[in-house]
Amino acid sequence: MDFSLSSSLLELQQRTRDFIAREVMPYERDERNTAHGPSESLRAELVEKARAAGLLTPHASPDMGGLGLDHVAKAIVFEEAGYSPLGPVAMNIHAPDEGNIHLMEAVATEAQKERWLRPLAAGRIRSCFAMTEPAPGAGADPSMLATTATRDGDHYVINGTKWFITGALGASFAIIMAKMEDGSATMFLSDMDRPGIRLERLMDSLDSCFTGGHGVLTFENLRVPAGDVLGEIGKGFRYAQVRLAPARLTHCMRWLGQARRAHDVALAYARERQAFGKALGEHEGVGFMLADNEIDLLNARLHIWHTAWLLDQGGRGNIESSLAKVSCSEAEWRVVDRCVQILGGRGVTGESIVMRIFKDMRAFRIYDGPSEVHRWSIARKLMAPRRGDAS
Amino acid sequence: MDFSLSSSLLELQQRTRDFIAREVMPYERDERNTAHGPSESLRAELVEKARAAGLLTPHASPDMGGLGLDHVAKAIVFEEAGYSPLGPVAMNIHAPDEGNIHLMEAVATEAQKERWLRPLAAGRIRSCFAMTEPAPGAGADPSMLATTATRDGDHYVINGTKWFITGALGASFAIIMAKMEDGSATMFLSDMDRPGIRLERLMDSLDSCFTGGHGVLTFENLRVPAGDVLGEIGKGFRYAQVRLAPARLTHCMRWLGQARRAHDVALAYARERQAFGKALGEHEGVGFMLADNEIDLLNARLHIWHTAWLLDQGGRGNIESSLAKVSCSEAEWRVVDRCVQILGGRGVTGESIVMRIFKDMRAFRIYDGPSEVHRWSIARKLMAPRRGDAS
Amino acid sequence: MDFSLSSSLLELQQRTRDFIAREVMPYERDERNTAHGPSESLRAELVEKARAAGLLTPHASPDMGGLGLDHVAKAIVFEEAGYSPLGPVAMNIHAPDEGNIHLMEAVATEAQKERWLRPLAAGRIRSCFAMTEPAPGAGADPSMLATTATRDGDHYVINGTKWFITGALGASFAIIMAKMEDGSATMFLSDMDRPGIRLERLMDSLDSCFTGGHGVLTFENLRVPAGDVLGEIGKGFRYAQVRLAPARLTHCMRWLGQARRAHDVALAYARERQAFGKALGEHEGVGFMLADNEIDLLNARLHIWHTAWLLDQGGRGNIESSLAKVSCSEAEWRVVDRCVQILGGRGVTGESIVMRIFKDMRAFRIYDGPSEVHRWSIARKLMAPRRGDAS
Amino acid sequence: MDFSLSSSLLELQQRTRDFIAREVMPYERDERNTAHGPSESLRAELVEKARAAGLLTPHASPDMGGLGLDHVAKAIVFEEAGYSPLGPVAMNIHAPDEGNIHLMEAVATEAQKERWLRPLAAGRIRSCFAMTEPAPGAGADPSMLATTATRDGDHYVINGTKWFITGALGASFAIIMAKMEDGSATMFLSDMDRPGIRLERLMDSLDSCFTGGHGVLTFENLRVPAGDVLGEIGKGFRYAQVRLAPARLTHCMRWLGQARRAHDVALAYARERQAFGKALGEHEGVGFMLADNEIDLLNARLHIWHTAWLLDQGGRGNIESSLAKVSCSEAEWRVVDRCVQILGGRGVTGESIVMRIFKDMRAFRIYDGPSEVHRWSIARKLMAPRRGDAS
Repeated sequence: MDFSLSSSLLELQQRTRDFIAREVMPYERDERNTAHGPSESLRAELVEKARAAGLLTPHASPDMGGLGLDHVAKAIVFEEAGYSPLGPVAMNIHAPDEGNIHLMEAVATEAQKERWLRPLAAGRIRSCFAMTEPAPGAGADPSMLATTATRDGDHYVINGTKWFITGALGASFAIIMAKMEDGSATMFLSDMDRPGIRLERLMDSLDSCFTGGHGVLTFENLRVPAGDVLGEIGKGFRYAQVRLAPARLTHCMRWLGQARRAHDVALAYARERQAFGKALGEHEGVGFMLADNEIDLLNARLHIWHTAWLLDQGGRGNIESSLAKVSCSEAEWRVVDRCVQILGGRGVTGESIVMRIFKDMRAFRIYDGPSEVHRWSIARKLMAPRRGDAS
Repeated sequence: MDFSLSSSLLELQQRTRDFIAREVMPYERDERNTAHGPSESLRAELVEKARAAGLLTPHASPDMGGLGLDHVAKAIVFEEAGYSPLGPVAMNIHAPDEGNIHLMEAVATEAQKERWLRPLAAGRIRSCFAMTEPAPGAGADPSMLATTATRDGDHYVINGTKWFITGALGASFAIIMAKMEDGSATMFLSDMDRPGIRLERLMDSLDSCFTGGHGVLTFENLRVPAGDVLGEIGKGFRYAQVRLAPARLTHCMRWLGQARRAHDVALAYARERQAFGKALGEHEGVGFMLADNEIDLLNARLHIWHTAWLLDQGGRGNIESSLAKVSCSEAEWRVVDRCVQILGGRGVTGESIVMRIFKDMRAFRIYDGPSEVHRWSIARKLMAPRRGDAS
Repeated sequence: MDFSLSSSLLELQQRTRDFIAREVMPYERDERNTAHGPSESLRAELVEKARAAGLLTPHASPDMGGLGLDHVAKAIVFEEAGYSPLGPVAMNIHAPDEGNIHLMEAVATEAQKERWLRPLAAGRIRSCFAMTEPAPGAGADPSMLATTATRDGDHYVINGTKWFITGALGASFAIIMAKMEDGSATMFLSDMDRPGIRLERLMDSLDSCFTGGHGVLTFENLRVPAGDVLGEIGKGFRYAQVRLAPARLTHCMRWLGQARRAHDVALAYARERQAFGKALGEHEGVGFMLADNEIDLLNARLHIWHTAWLLDQGGRGNIESSLAKVSCSEAEWRVVDRCVQILGGRGVTGESIVMRIFKDMRAFRIYDGPSEVHRWSIARKLMAPRRGDAS
Repeated sequence: MDFSLSSSLLELQQRTRDFIAREVMPYERDERNTAHGPSESLRAELVEKARAAGLLTPHASPDMGGLGLDHVAKAIVFEEAGYSPLGPVAMNIHAPDEGNIHLMEAVATEAQKERWLRPLAAGRIRSCFAMTEPAPGAGADPSMLATTATRDGDHYVINGTKWFITGALGASFAIIMAKMEDGSATMFLSDMDRPGIRLERLMDSLDSCFTGGHGVLTFENLRVPAGDVLGEIGKGFRYAQVRLAPARLTHCMRWLGQARRAHDVALAYARERQAFGKALGEHEGVGFMLADNEIDLLNARLHIWHTAWLLDQGGRGNIESSLAKVSCSEAEWRVVDRCVQILGGRGVTGESIVMRIFKDMRAFRIYDGPSEVHRWSIARKLMAPRRGDAS
C-alpha cells in the first residue's frame, strides 16, 4: 500500500496548480462568463493558454496530443484543474467532451477519429452527447429511450427530442443515442450543421460552467450514413456504461477541486472576519464546519483515488463508480453548502466565487445518475447472491 | 387547546389562495422578473391586483389601510401569499417593507407616519432598511456597527457604508442604523434622494425575489434633521429586536408557502413521471423524500403557529423566534432541496419554478441571523440559571 | 387557534409532575429494576402510589375508574409521566396495557370488560398483545400472519408462535391475533394460564422499561371459547389499526417525557462541568446540541398536540399518526443521542439515568411500525389521486 | 499510488479471518460473556487459541513475541479481529493493553519491560491506564488533572480518584497519570496489589467488550518508587499523545470490523426476510441503507489506511488521527444504527449479535476524545496561519 505520488506526477500536479492560479483564475470575473457558460471566445483564449502550458487535453492519448494520463493521474490533475470553474474548460477536460474523447478513443474507427476526435482533442471544436430526453423519454432510466433510428438504405433516419444537452450550442458534432427497431440502442455520430438537427432553445440552468450551456435538440428525419455509427449497432447501452463509469469519476475529481476552492475561501474569511469578539473561525459553530469540510474533502479524495486505482487495474468499476459518485457528490455538496453558510451574505452573492460554485455544483447530485439511482443500483448488486462471508 | 381557524380566517385563507392562483401565478414567467427582482412596473401592476382584491398590506392597521392581522392570522395569510414568489410582492408583505411597516407603526411619530408610512402601506412607495455593513462593520454581530451619526446643530450627520441593502434601488426612503458617539445606536429616517446617499452598485445575488435586489449604499455627510430620528435616540438595538423577532417569523411564513409550492410541484411530477417500470413516487427512494417533506412542512407550520400565538399573547418571543427561525429555515430548505432532487434535471433548470425557489431560499438560513447565531443565542439563554425543574 | 391549556389540565399536569418527582423518581435505582423491567413487586408498589394520588389509569373511562382523558389531555399527562422510566408503569399507562385498555373499551363485550378490563384498568393484573411473529410470520408486514385459528364446535383452536410479546411474563391474559381459514384475522382473549399457552423464554432486550420484558409464546392447540372473541370475527386487522393509531401517539408522548428528562440532565451537567476554561455548555459545540434539543422537543410536542387534537375531533388519524410517529421517534432519539454525547463517559454508564433512557428508546424507531414502513405508507397516501391543489 | 496488499499481508489477513470465524465466533454466546466483559477464564482460553494460531499480540515487536506489524498491517489485521467482539480480546489487541504495549515499547526501561511488558505482551497479565477522573478532574480536558504525585525521598506519593478505568478489575498493573507540583504531568507504573490502590466499584456500562469492565480507582498515599516512573518526569501529556494518536486509530480499525460484521448480518437478513411481497432488501428504503453502509465502510477503511500509512512514513499524525477518529467513529456508528433498523425487533434484542455491537460501539464517539474535542482541535489547527494556497 502506498499513498505517495511519483515525482513526475507531483511535478504535473504543481504545474497544473500554478497554471490554474496564474493563467486561469484571473479570467473568473471576465465578462465573457455568461449564464450559459464561458463564451466560445473565452474558451478559445483559455485553451490556447493550456496548449502553451502543455496541459491541454491531458487525458487523451499521446497520439491524440494528450499526456495519456491513467485514472490515478487524472485524479490528481483534474482536482487541480477544478480549483477554478474555468480550469476544466481551459484544459479541455470538461463534460461532455472529456467523456466523449474517452469513449471515442475506445470505440471509434480510425476515420472517425481523424475526422472528429483529433480536432476535438486539440480543443479546436466541441462536441455534445445527446442521450437525455424529456418525459416520457429516457431520463434517469435510460431504457425509456424514445428517439428512434430506422435503417433506410445505407443511412439511418433519426427522429426524436433530446434535452439537457450540454454544450449543444456551438458544438461541431454530436453523439446521438437512439433506439433501434429491435429495442436495442445505438450511438451515432453527426455533425451539428446537418439538416434535420435543430437547437430549439437554451435552457435556463442553475449552473453556468459549461460552454454552450444546456440545449433542447430535435431530430427530424436526420439522415446519418451507416459509416457514422459509433462502434457497433445495438451496443449503445453498453457504450453508455463505458463512457459513464469513468465520466462520473472525473466529475468527482473536478468538483473536488471546486469544493476545495470553496473551503479555502471560507477558511480565509473565517480567519479574517471578526464577530462577537473573535475571529469567525474561532467560534466552534464555524470551526466545526471547517473541520467537517476537511473530513469530507479527504474522504472524497481517498475514495476517488481508490476507484481510479481500481480502474487502472482493469476493473470495470461499475459498483465502485456508483459508490464514489454518491459519496463524493454528497460530500462535496456538503462542503460547499457549509462554505456558503460560513460566508454569510457574501456566500449568496457575487462577492465571492463560492456562490458560483454552489450554483454549479447542485446538479452534480443529479447528473450521470441521481444519488437515488446509484443507491438502488448498489443495493441491487448487494442483494444478489454472492461471496460466502456473510454470517 | 384548539388548532381550528375561525371561519373569517378560513375565508381569508381561501381568498388569498385563490388570489395567488388566479391573479399572481400567471405573472411568474413575465419578462419583468429580473435577476434583481420583479421590476417596479411589475410590482406596481401586482399591487393594484392586491388592492382590488382587498388583500394589500393586510398586516398594517386598519388606520393605515390594512386588515390589522394578528400574528396567527399573518401565519395563515403569509403562507398562502408565499405560494408564489410574487405573492409577497403583490400583497406588500415582503421584506424589508413588511418589517419596516411593523416597526414604524410601533415607534414612528404621527408626522413620520403620514409622510412615510401611509404611502408605504398603500404600496405607493418602497423602503429599505440599512443596517448590515461590509467587514469590519456590522454583519451577524450588530455590535460592530461602524456607520456613525454625529450631532451637528439640529441635524445628525451620517457617514458609513452599508451592503446587502434589500430594495435600495427604487426605495423612496431608508431606515438607517448608525452608532452614536456614546456607543449606542439610533435609527434614522431619510429620503433616498437626499445628497449624501449614494447607491454604489447592485450586488449579484442568488435570490431574485426582492424588488430592487440588494444594493451597496454609502452615506457621506448625510444630514438628517433631528425630527427624523425614528423613535428615541440610543434605542437602535432595541428597535432592531422589535423589528426582527416578528420579521424572522414572517420570513418563516412566506417561505413555508414557497416550500409547499415546491413540494406540490415535485409531488405532481412524482405521480406522473415513469421510471424503471412505475411512477417515480412509487419508488421508495422518492416516496420517502415526499414523506419527509410532509413532516417538515407540518412541523414548520405548527412551529410558526405556536410562536405567532405566543406573540399574540404578548410575549416578546426572542428565544421562541430564534427557535422558529432555525427550525423552519432548515426544514423548509430540506424540503426544497429534496424537491430539486425529485425533479432531476427539471429541478436545476428553468423548466420548473422549483429552481427559482431553491435559489431564493438558500439565503434564508443566513438572513436575520444565520442559524449559528441563533443556536448560540438559544444556548446562552439555556445556560443562564433558571427554572428549578432540571434534575 | 389556542395553545393554552385549561386550568384543570394545568392542575393535572402539575400534579402529575409532582407525583413523578416525589413518588416515582426515588425508585429509579431500586434493585427491583431488572433487565426484564420493573419486577411485579415494584410495579405493584408504584401502582398503589398512583392510586393514592388519583393518577392511576387516567385514560380509562370514569366507569372503569379512570379520568376519561381525551387525547390532548393524554398528551399533557403522559409526557409528565414519561419523565421517569417508571412513571408509565406506576400510572398504568404503559404499553401494551394502555393500548389494550383503549381497544377493549371500544370493542369488548360487557362480560369481557368485567372479567378482564376492570381488573386491568385497576392495575390489579396485566395483559399482553400477541401479534408479532418470528420469520416467516407477521413482522412489519401484518399480512404475513402465520398463527391460525380453526373453528371446532363452539371453540377456536389456535396454533402458532409469537415473539417480542411485551409483558407476557406475569400477564393474566392475552389478546391474540390469528388468521382464519378465509385469510382474515381475528382477535381472541385468553387467560395466560390455559393449557396450550407456553412462555418459551424471555428475550434479552436493549430496553428494560416494560414489566415482564419481552417473551416468546407458543400456542399449541389452545382452545378459546367463541365467546372470548374480541369484537367481531374477521376484523382483526381493522382493530389493530384502532389500537395502533392512538397507541403510536401515546408512545410519542411518553418518550417525549423521557427525552425531556435526558435534556434536563444534560443541561444541568453542561452548566456545571468545566472543560477548557469554561462551562461545557458555553462551548458552542455543546451549546448547539442543547439548542437543537430544544427545537426537537418543541417540534415533537407540537406535533403530538396537533395529532391528539385531530383525534379528539373525530379523525381516524392514520396518516397523521404515521407522520407523528416518524417525526417524534426520530426527534426524540436525536435528543437522547445528543445528551449521551454531552454527558461523555457518564452518558454511557449507569452514572446517569440517560444511559437507561438511551437503551429504552432505540426500539421506538422500530415498535408499532419502523420509520420505513410509515414513510412508505405516507408516500402511498400522497401518491393517491387527491385534492386539486397541486400545481 | 498503490492500494494492493503484499501477499504476506493478504495471507495474514486471511489467516486472521479464518481464526476469528472458526476459533473465536463460537464463543460469542458463551456464558462467560458478562455485563463487565469476557471473564478472565474466557479471556485466558481465547488467548491460548490465538497463541496457538500465531496471532497473539501481533503489534508487539518480535522481541516481545509479536509480529512487529506496522500501522498499515495493523489496519488489515485489527479489522479482521474486530469482526467478532471477542477477537481483540483473543489476540490481545484490545484497549487499554494494546496502547499500553505500544507506549511501553517506546518509553519503558529495560527493567520495566522485563517486569511488566513481557508478560503483558504474552497475554499472561493485563494492565490498565488510569487517566480519566470524575468532575472536577480530567475528563475531555486532560489539563484539569487533579490526581497529585509528591516526591517523598526516593518515592512518589500519589493521591486521587480515577474512573472509567477500563480493565482495572483483574489488571496486574496500572499506568497512572498524575500532576506534579510544578503543574506538569508524569506517568507512573504500579502493581495493582499495592496498598494505597483501591478498586471502589465497577461501573455499569453500555459496552461489555472489555475484560474487567470499567472501574473507579482511588489512590490514597500510594507510594511508587522513583524507578517506576514511566519515561521522564513531566512528560505525561506528551506520552499521552504518543499513546493516543495510534490508539485512536486502532479503535477505528477494530470497530470497522464490528461495523462490517453488523452489515453482513443485516444484509443476510435483508436477503432472506420477506415483507410486503418481496425480500426486505428489495425495498429501496432498506436497500438504500445497505448502500449507505457500503459507502461508510469503504470510506472508513480508506481513511484508516491513509492515516496508518502516514504514521508509517514517520508522521506524528495528530491532526490526521483526529480526522480519522471523528470520521470513522461516526461512519461506523451510522452503519450499526442502520443495521439495527434493518433488523427491526431482532436488532434490539439478543436474537442478533448486532444489539451487542450497537451497545459496545456508542462510546466510541466519546472514548479517546469526543468528536467535539477533535473537531475543535482540527479547527484550531486550520485557523493557525499556514500554507499560502488559500485564496
